[in-house]
Amino acid sequence: MRKAAFVMRLLAGFFGALILTSGASALDDPLPSWNAGAAKTAIVDFVTAVTTAGSPDFVPPADRIATFDNDGTLWVEQPFYTQLAFALERVKALAPQHPEWSTTQPFKAVLEDDLKTLAAGGEKGLVELVMATHAGMTTDEFAAIVTDWLKTARHPRLKQPYTKLIYQPMLELLAYLRANGFKTFIVSGGGVEFMRPWTESVYGVPPEQVVGSTIKTEFELRDGKPVLMRLPQIDFIDDKTGKPVGINKFIGRQPIAAFGNSDGDLQMLQWTTSAPGRRFGLIVRHDDAEREYAYDRDSHIGRLDKALDAAPAAGWTVVSMKRDWNAVFPREK
Amino acid sequence: MRKAAFVMRLLAGFFGALILTSGASALDDPLPSWNAGAAKTAIVDFVTAVTTAGSPDFVPPADRIATFDNDGTLWVEQPFYTQLAFALERVKALAPQHPEWSTTQPFKAVLEDDLKTLAAGGEKGLVELVMATHAGMTTDEFAAIVTDWLKTARHPRLKQPYTKLIYQPMLELLAYLRANGFKTFIVSGGGVEFMRPWTESVYGVPPEQVVGSTIKTEFELRDGKPVLMRLPQIDFIDDKTGKPVGINKFIGRQPIAAFGNSDGDLQMLQWTTSAPGRRFGLIVRHDDAEREYAYDRDSHIGRLDKALDAAPAAGWTVVSMKRDWNAVFPREK
Repeated sequence: MRKAAFVMRLLAGFFGALILTSGASALDDPLPSWNAGAAKTAIVDFVTAVTTAGSPDFVPPADRIATFDNDGTLWVEQPFYTQLAFALERVKALAPQHPEWSTTQPFKAVLEDDLKTLAAGGEKGLVELVMATHAGMTTDEFAAIVTDWLKTARHPRLKQPYTKLIYQPMLELLAYLRANGFKTFIVSGGGVEFMRPWTESVYGVPPEQVVGSTIKTEFELRDGKPVLMRLPQIDFIDDKTGKPVGINKFIGRQPIAAFGNSDGDLQMLQWTTSAPGRRFGLIVRHDDAEREYAYDRDSHIGRLDKALDAAPAAGWTVVSMKRDWNAVFPREK
Repeated sequence: MRKAAFVMRLLAGFFGALILTSGASALDDPLPSWNAGAAKTAIVDFVTAVTTAGSPDFVPPADRIATFDNDGTLWVEQPFYTQLAFALERVKALAPQHPEWSTTQPFKAVLEDDLKTLAAGGEKGLVELVMATHAGMTTDEFAAIVTDWLKTARHPRLKQPYTKLIYQPMLELLAYLRANGFKTFIVSGGGVEFMRPWTESVYGVPPEQVVGSTIKTEFELRDGKPVLMRLPQIDFIDDKTGKPVGINKFIGRQPIAAFGNSDGDLQMLQWTTSAPGRRFGLIVRHDDAEREYAYDRDSHIGRLDKALDAAPAAGWTVVSMKRDWNAVFPREK
């Protein structure tokens, strides 16, 4: 079930112009890229309530845990997850060492940019691609591969490095929470070792605060030197009902605030905001086809349907990218 | 294999006058319970080297990760792991709700204090005991059970609450490292949810910095409220070769210092100290039968054999509890 969910997530649709908008800045406003409105007010009210000594909603710093989904919440997830782009491009890069791939599916389809055949291969094919590109090397080697790839990879429509396609308002939110004593975590369906090499420099979130899906690794002495080999076996899928499980397993505390953008975040939002005390849930709604993308209930990627329906009764803040954000991406430096 | 290792660990021997020794204190010495000598010097030299700006061994604060084993390194592990004492006492506490246990092994053996029969039941019996006492409730319920149990449980020989049978010199070491910008983690073969309820108050290590063995949990809506149910299935065994795997999975950085006391810590020590740059490995050797326990190569619990042999060539510091510690436990307050 979880394996299927993971694969469906990667499989989802294979479907262009970005205007880099300058983020406004104001010395006194910690959230300058957020327009005045209900969403911004809700954020500031929550943070003020839980950090004001003597407030009935006060939360000690140690318990100020905030969890953020990554794909679609902190960075662009369309037209397909960056990790899938990585897998496809890695297949091409590795093809010279695998002459058999030119006649073997699903590799042949990737090499021929035949996305239709690739999609038809379904779950089994996707798992093969992921395992061929994510396993069979040490953890250090994989981190280096990811780091190198990100240096040159570009988003197909936005023509930018993926690590620049991050949401400026969310960067401000992360920094605002940290400045108020929160510990910020990423809780993503993506692979934890695909994220950890860059989350600290890009988001200010250190590796030990990244929760994600994992494949199995194995300790091995290689020429007397200990290494961890990445095995082609799924260990844990940190998506949907897996998110509360992953939070409990990796963090061991219930967050007091959770941020997501899709039904994959529904259970994390439920679990976070149903606990006693003042809690905060937020959903980023992608409704800005001009500056980014517009999609929700019918999208194969980042579908937002059940969580959107649940939001009003649960008291979750729904952010309109178009209305609430005066900048989407960081200003070019 | 891992399941077997986990069970052997819990199964290990059932054997066993504490003198509460006053910890010396000196305003200028961050490690007053450590006698002057090679071990103390090695610790201070390492910390000085990696924290001195301009030193060739300088390590930025973010990379100052230190990992500590728990059983036998931070608290007493003889005559058997505290978590096993918990399991056995929980069987007795739950027996009235399980009349069938009076005639069913391994429960009958526990209820009759028949440790010989219990040991003869081997792995299968132990797993049954662990699952009967650690699963079938929510994560919140389990945390409350552990917390309540620790309030009244007493060590069979030392007659103290388990959370007072912690090593004063190691508490000082944890605090000394944190004062020098280290992030201190526990990496234990014990159950992570057995430790997290108390590690912050007892060791100053917050739940999100505790790595350990896990059982599976499942997200569930119970009367509309989300809970995580603990399932009777082992998820991950954080012992021996599992320790580097657990560190990589939960922390995602390689430690620069590791502290252990048994062969269960061998691979963690290897993995930590084989990385490039200044690294530190330390083994606590239990050689103080009077104040605590004396055991090493032949012990069923906390066996120290291969790691002891490997220590000289690897440059690990071997601490003699008898010689290097002027206090073992915290002074009564």
